[in-house]
Amino acid sequence: MDAFLDDFATMSAFGATPGGGVERQAASAADGENRAWFTDWLERNGFDVRVDAIGNIFGLIERIPGAPYVVVGSHLDSQPLAGRFDGAYGVLAGAHAVRAATGAEGPAVFNLAVVDWFNEEGSRFKPSMMGSAVFTGGLPLEVALATTDPTGTSVADALDTIGGRGKAAPLDVAAYLEIHVEQGRELEDTGTTIGLVATTWTAHKLEVVVRGEQSHTGAARMADRRDALYGAAELIVAVRRLIDGFEPEELHTAVSEMYLDPNSPVAIAREVRMLVDVRSPDRSLLETAVDRLRSEMRAIEERARVDIEIRGVVEWSSGPFLEEGILLAAAEAERLGYSHRRSATVAGHDATNMKEIVPTVMLFVPSVDGISHNEREFTSDADMLAGLDVLTAVLVRVAAGDLDAAIGDIGEGR
Amino acid sequence: MDAFLDDFATMSAFGATPGGGVERQAASAADGENRAWFTDWLERNGFDVRVDAIGNIFGLIERIPGAPYVVVGSHLDSQPLAGRFDGAYGVLAGAHAVRAATGAEGPAVFNLAVVDWFNEEGSRFKPSMMGSAVFTGGLPLEVALATTDPTGTSVADALDTIGGRGKAAPLDVAAYLEIHVEQGRELEDTGTTIGLVATTWTAHKLEVVVRGEQSHTGAARMADRRDALYGAAELIVAVRRLIDGFEPEELHTAVSEMYLDPNSPVAIAREVRMLVDVRSPDRSLLETAVDRLRSEMRAIEERARVDIEIRGVVEWSSGPFLEEGILLAAAEAERLGYSHRRSATVAGHDATNMKEIVPTVMLFVPSVDGISHNEREFTSDADMLAGLDVLTAVLVRVAAGDLDAAIGDIGEGR
Repeated sequence: MDAFLDDFATMSAFGATPGGGVERQAASAADGENRAWFTDWLERNGFDVRVDAIGNIFGLIERIPGAPYVVVGSHLDSQPLAGRFDGAYGVLAGAHAVRAATGAEGPAVFNLAVVDWFNEEGSRFKPSMMGSAVFTGGLPLEVALATTDPTGTSVADALDTIGGRGKAAPLDVAAYLEIHVEQGRELEDTGTTIGLVATTWTAHKLEVVVRGEQSHTGAARMADRRDALYGAAELIVAVRRLIDGFEPEELHTAVSEMYLDPNSPVAIAREVRMLVDVRSPDRSLLETAVDRLRSEMRAIEERARVDIEIRGVVEWSSGPFLEEGILLAAAEAERLGYSHRRSATVAGHDATNMKEIVPTVMLFVPSVDGISHNEREFTSDADMLAGLDVLTAVLVRVAAGDLDAAIGDIGEGR
Repeated sequence: MDAFLDDFATMSAFGATPGGGVERQAASAADGENRAWFTDWLERNGFDVRVDAIGNIFGLIERIPGAPYVVVGSHLDSQPLAGRFDGAYGVLAGAHAVRAATGAEGPAVFNLAVVDWFNEEGSRFKPSMMGSAVFTGGLPLEVALATTDPTGTSVADALDTIGGRGKAAPLDVAAYLEIHVEQGRELEDTGTTIGLVATTWTAHKLEVVVRGEQSHTGAARMADRRDALYGAAELIVAVRRLIDGFEPEELHTAVSEMYLDPNSPVAIAREVRMLVDVRSPDRSLLETAVDRLRSEMRAIEERARVDIEIRGVVEWSSGPFLEEGILLAAAEAERLGYSHRRSATVAGHDATNMKEIVPTVMLFVPSVDGISHNEREFTSDADMLAGLDVLTAVLVRVAAGDLDAAIGDIGEGR
C-alpha cells in the first residue's frame, strides 16, 4: 500500500500550487506532464496503453484473449487552483486496483483496464465529462474537438500541443467502476469510510444572456440606463435567494461563470453572459425552483430595463445506480470491515455517463469538511487506502462475473 | 465649412463599426491609422507636428517666434463600440479652428496649436485622461508607460507598435480650449446650441475587491459557501439602489468593469475585482452617499460571508472653470447669434486636467438623447459647425490676449 501513497505523492507534484493543491486544467502543460508520467507508469507495470481520438487514456491488461473489459478509473484533469484528490485519486487507485486484481486468485471472465477520462472538469472546455461523453456516444467527437476555451484554442489544438490525441478503436466494456472523493460532508458527519453511490442529484445548467444598452458610466441619466451588469447582479442575487423557499440543502444554486461586454471602466455593459447552476435531489422540486426563477427574471427585466434570455439548458440524467452493484460493493466493504452507507452524488462524474451504457459501480471516500475545487480539499491516507482496498475487492468480483450473475443476464445493458 | 464635414466623414471611417460608430481604443491599430491620417492632415496644412513621450500629438503654427501657445484640442481615442463624435469632433474642430484663426485679421500675442491627447478614454489603459495627466504633471511618465491592458500589453509597447511615441520638449502653453459633445440632455432639452462649461461633477472611483473561498459550484453546502460573485452581485445592487436616497439625477452610480477568479462553470468565485463609479454635482452629497455605501458593504460582508476591501479611491478635481473664460465665450456665442447657457460636465475631460495649470475654456454642443459611449451617439452637422464657429472666434480672441487681459494678469496660472 506504500507504493500507492508514494505514487500519489509523485503525481501530486505535477501542477502543484503553493496552497497544497494542483492546477492541471484539461490539456494544459501540467495535465500533459501528469498524463505522460501516468502513461509511463502503465508501461512500466505491464499495461498495454491506448489513447483514443478525444484523448482518453486506457491501460489494458488482457488475460482472456477477446474478452470484454471491466474498466475502472476517473480523470486526471483539475479545476484552476484545485485539490489534488478530485479525479486523480480515482485514476491512480484504479491503476493499483487493476494491478492487484491481475494477480488475484480465482476465476476471471473479463479483462481489466484503467482509464483517465479527458476533461471531466469542464473548466477550460465545456461541457464537463467530455471524454466519457464522447466514449458513450452522448457527445459527437467533432463537436468536442471543435470546442474552444475562452482564449479561442480548440480541444483538438490543445490536445495536439501535449501530444494527447490518439485513434484507438472503441473498447468492448463489460462494466465500469469508479472511486472518488465525496466532495460533501455526509460520510465525515456520519463517521463512515465508504460511500456507495446510489443516486445522482438532478442538475439544470441555464445559459443566460442579459442584454442592456451601452452608455456612459458617468454621464448617462440614471433614468435612461439599461445596465446589463446591474440586471445580471439582480439575477445572481435572485438565484441565491431561490433556496430561501425550500428546506436547507434541498436545493443548491450558484452562478460562478460570467462574461461582460465591453467590461470597460467608463461604458455601461451592453451584454452579460452567465451560467446559472441549480441542483436538487428531487427533480420536481428542482423544476418548481426553476419556474420561480423564470418569473423572477421577468420581474428583473422590468426593474432593470434589460432583456433576459435563457439560451440553453443542460440537464443531467439523474437515474439511480445499479442496485446489484450497490449490494455487491456493500458486501465487500462489510467483509473487509469498513463502515459504509448509501450516498447521493451532487456533482456529475464520468460514472454518470458510463452507467447509461454498462453496469456501473461508484464508491466515495470522505472529504474533510466537504471542501472541494479548492487547494484545501483533503482526504486522509487511511481513507484513500481503505477505498483502494474495497475498490480492488469489488473489481475482482466484477471481473469474475459476479455482478453480471447478480443481474442475471450476462451482457445486460452492454 | 464643407471642408470640416468632409474631413470628419473621412476620419469616421477609421475603425468604423456596423452600427455607425467607431472602435479606436488607445494605441489600437484603428487609433494608429487615425493618428497617421491626422498627422498627415496637419503636415498638408502647414502645421509643425510634434509627438511627446506619452504619445500626445501637437500641431503647431508659430507666428511669433518664442511666444507661448494657445492650445486647442481633445482626443482621437474611443471606447469599444463607441460613437464617432466623442473626442474626435473636438480634435478636428480644433485643427480647423487653428487653421482659420491663423489667417484672421487683428492682433496676435500667442502662437497656435492643436492637440490630440493620448488615451483620454481609459477603457484599455487606466487611468483615463492619461496623456493630459502626464503633460500637466499629475501622472509620472514612467507610471503611465508601464500601465498594462487586460492582456498584459504595456502603454509603451502599444505605442511603439503604432509608432506613436516621440520625445518632443514640453510646450509653453498660454491657454487651453476644448470643444466636446455634451454626452447629456441639457442642451437638447433646453433647445440650446452652445454649452459653456462652468463646473465639473465630483467623481469617486472605488477599486473594490470582494474575497470569498473557492468551492464546488454544485456540491458545496449552501451554508458553507463564501461566494465572492454573490457578494459582488449584492454590492452592485446596493450601488444602484444608493440613488433611491436622493433626488433624481443628484447622484449617478454604476459598476461597469469586473473581473472574477477563477471564472469557472464549476468552481465558486474566490475573488471579484470591480470599479464602483459614484458622481454628483454636490461634493458633500457624494461623500454622504459613499459613507452609506461603506456601511452597506459591512452588511453584505455578513450576509454573503465575504470580505470587501476598498483598495483605492480615485477622485476628480471638481473646481469651477475660469469665470473670465465663460464670459468671453458667452460674448462670442452671443455675437455670432447662437443660443448658449452654462453647463456642468459629468464626464471628465482633458480640460479637467488642463484647467489646473492654465486658463481654460470648454464648450459643449448637443448630444441627441444624451446618448454617448454608444454607436448611436449623434450630433447634427449644424451643431458641429456652430461649435466650430464659436470655437474659432474664442480662439482668435484668446490668441489676441483678450482672456489674459480679462484675468488682468498676463501669465496667471501658467
